[in-house]
Order: sequence, then structure tokens, then C-alpha cells
Amino acid sequence: MSKPLILVTNDDSIYSKGIKALVEAMSEIGDVVVVAPDKPQSGMGRAVTLNKPLRLNKISRFNQVEESYTCSGTPVDCVKIARDIVLHRKPDLCVSGINHGSNSSINILYSGTMSAAVEAAIEHIPSIGFSLCSHDLDADFTAAAHYAKVIVQQILKHPLEKGILLNVNIPDLPLNEIKGIKTGHQAIAKWEEEFEERIDPRGSKYYWLTGKFVNYDKRENTDEWALENGFVSIVPVQFDMTSHKGIETIHHHWRYDQ
Amino acid sequence: MSKPLILVTNDDSIYSKGIKALVEAMSEIGDVVVVAPDKPQSGMGRAVTLNKPLRLNKISRFNQVEESYTCSGTPVDCVKIARDIVLHRKPDLCVSGINHGSNSSINILYSGTMSAAVEAAIEHIPSIGFSLCSHDLDADFTAAAHYAKVIVQQILKHPLEKGILLNVNIPDLPLNEIKGIKTGHQAIAKWEEEFEERIDPRGSKYYWLTGKFVNYDKRENTDEWALENGFVSIVPVQFDMTSHKGIETIHHHWRYDQ
Repeated sequence: MSKPLILVTNDDSIYSKGIKALVEAMSEIGDVVVVAPDKPQSGMGRAVTLNKPLRLNKISRFNQVEESYTCSGTPVDCVKIARDIVLHRKPDLCVSGINHGSNSSINILYSGTMSAAVEAAIEHIPSIGFSLCSHDLDADFTAAAHYAKVIVQQILKHPLEKGILLNVNIPDLPLNEIKGIKTGHQAIAKWEEEFEERIDPRGSKYYWLTGKFVNYDKRENTDEWALENGFVSIVPVQFDMTSHKGIETIHHHWRYDQ
Repeated sequence: MSKPLILVTNDDSIYSKGIKALVEAMSEIGDVVVVAPDKPQSGMGRAVTLNKPLRLNKISRFNQVEESYTCSGTPVDCVKIARDIVLHRKPDLCVSGINHGSNSSINILYSGTMSAAVEAAIEHIPSIGFSLCSHDLDADFTAAAHYAKVIVQQILKHPLEKGILLNVNIPDLPLNEIKGIKTGHQAIAKWEEEFEERIDPRGSKYYWLTGKFVNYDKRENTDEWALENGFVSIVPVQFDMTSHKGIETIHHHWRYDQ
């Protein structure tokens, strides 16, 4: 049986430690092609480059891979250009990460890592975003890479329905302290944010975004619960954002005077 | 009864025709404060500015409003800074748009307009994104502004559950040719994309994203169906992206050899 073709991307840039760990792990499973941003793109959400052209440069950073490219665009751009220009076909799997920092709960909505994974899922490519709960540039990805392999082996054996991808977050713990894997829900949490006001040398105000993450969700089947309790968290994710409850409310209560 | 406080933002910039139409419409309903990008931010998705500070400048562009500000960041940044620095409280409603161009179906995932609306909904602010199906900078927003008022009056009277916002798209038709309002689902559609390869004056390749939108969804209760048939489309939207079907599949089939 031929090896699966695995596209690897991320949002911390091709030069990050996290993508190197993911590339090495995936090389044990399939043929790997890398297309990743040439500079950090964290917090870029689902941004896509419309008003300027993209550059694609072949580089040799990873020994084990077929080909690797930097792209001047966002993580979403990387997936689009990988499929169209680099691979000329759908890969068997797209993995994004391993992100330096959690993408659990509401963070999925801001995440470049997860946006790349969503883009692949829109194209009906099985797809997973991996994130380690540590922002350290030199974080230890040993456990995260181990679980990336475990989970990828499962998705190749038992694929999910089209339009469903995975958001996988790994606690920042040594491998032997991780208790296993829990599959559950996106927790209801949010960033309690404040802007710090400062004055520049020319006397004008400017603002830095600051904030802390607050989990309001006390359920035990959420990603936050899993991570706080030493488990790897899997949240299956869909990109149909329709609220059926909202449709019902409008049908029952709204009357237009047009 | 005091008038509702309405925050207006968008992604086409504070200088676009669409936001002007929305501000004028909202001024007939409530007290309006505007915080919008100082330059176009289309396709910025849910990008948020983490690595550089934001600027906020008070300007006078609209006669009817309490205050209006440009912000140097993304649409999501505008909502965050509006709540924290400008308003010092939650507005009663946040409206985003009117976007120059459709945000129906899958376009919601790339849309700065809708991302601003999602950001407000995360903060439990009732929230609506409005988009007109015309990219023309000088498009006629008469019908769109009319329906914005009709829909805002309903949401103020019959609020939706927390965490549900609205994606409203208006066909590019004169008011008397619009048949009414349909509330339904995000259609299953996607962009069939290609990159156009070009050579720059120094002999290096670069790529432009091109593509056409293809609707695969034949159901009659979708946003695409409504728009194609001359109706204003409302899709209630949630930002919990958990796929319950995906959770079931994993629980039934996946077994980890750790």
C-alpha cells in the first residue's frame, strides 16, 4: 500500500520548532510536503490575501520531506496554494501546527493554525490542527508529537464525515504525565480584555491589547476540562455555523412590517 | 424609554458608502457610535492585532452620530476597542456593514464584516452583519438600508438567545423588486480557486488568487436560494463550532494504542 500524502502547514512560520516536530512525526507515517508561512501569522484568523500577489519559495529545512516551501501569505493562503500550485492534487491529510500556544475553546475563532485546517476541510481533505499549551519558542514537543501520530493513525483508519475536522490541544506536560485522550466540546469561555493606553514620544495615544482567558464552562466534557485534568483534548469541528435554535426563534416570534 | 445605543463598524473602512448608509439607517432607531477601520480590511477574517499597538482617531464624518472613530486595526480590533476604550459599556446592539459584496454561505468564514459581528456576540452583545450582493464602490444601498432597519427593529423587540448573531445578505435589487425576507441555513458551497502564475520584471514567479463561487446546495431553505430568488437572507449564526456527529464517530470507532 502506498504511503499517504500529508500536507503540513502552520501559523508560527516554517522556522518554528512546532512545525519541525510535526514534520518529523508525520514522516514516520506518510510522504510529507510542507507549505508554511515565511513569517509568524498568529492571530491572523481566517485572513486570506486578495489584494497582493503571493510568493512561494522552495527551501530545504527538513531532511525527511519530499518538498518544502515558504509562502508569503496567511495560513489559509498556504493551504490554497499548496493544493493548486505545489501538489496539483488533494493530499490524503492536512495537519497544521504544532502551534506554540493553546487553541482550545473560543481561541479556535482567532487561530491561524485552525483556519488552515478549516480551509483543508472545506476542500474535503481530512484535516487536524495541533496545538501545545505553551507559548515558549523552545517548548518541548515530545508528547505533542507522540499524540499527533496516535491521532493521525486513527483518522487514516477511521475517517470522519466530510466537513468535520479536528481541533487537538495537548497539555504542556511530559509524555508520562499525560493521562490519555478525551473527545468533547468547545468550552464556553472568553477573553476578558483590556487595552493598555500609552503615550508615544510625539505625545499621541496608542493602545496595546491585553487580556486574560476565563472559562465559564463547568461541564466535564469540554476541551478546557480535559486540558486542566492532564488529557489531550480532541474537539471535532464543523464550519456550518447555522444556529438551528436561532432559526426557530425567528420563525416563532419575528413579524415584519415591510 | 431611552434610545438603544448602537455600535456600527465594518470592514470596508469608515470611508465606504456602505457604512454611511448603515449609520444613517441606525440613526433613525438609536444613538449611534461608530468605530471602524481606517483602511479596507476585506478578507481579514477573524484576524486580531497582537504584535503592534492600535491607534484610535476621532473624526467627524457622520452628522447624525454621537461619536465616530477610525481604528488602525482589523474589524475584530474595532469591536474590542470600542467596548473597552470608547463606550466603557456594552452597547445594546452591534451592526457591521453594510458590506460591499455578499457574505453568504462559506464567505462568512473569510469575512471581516461577520467577524466583527461574531466578536460582539462573544461579548453577549446582540449583533448583525449586513452585506449587499454588489462589490460596486458606488452601489445603491437604499434597499439594504431599508431592510437593515426592519431587521434591527425585530431583534430589539424579540432578542435572540445569547451566542446567536445574524448574517444578513441583501440582493442587489431595487427595493420594490425584493420579495421579502427568508430565514434559513448557510448553503454548502465553496470557491473553486486557481492561482494565476505571473513573472515579475526581475524574472521571479508570483501568484494571484482567482476563483469562482460554486453552490452545490440544492435545498430551498438556504441563503443562496433566498438571494437567487430575490429575497433578503437571514442566517442565524453560532460560534460554537463543535460537531456532535464527529464526537459520536470518534466514540464509536476510534481506539488508541498509546
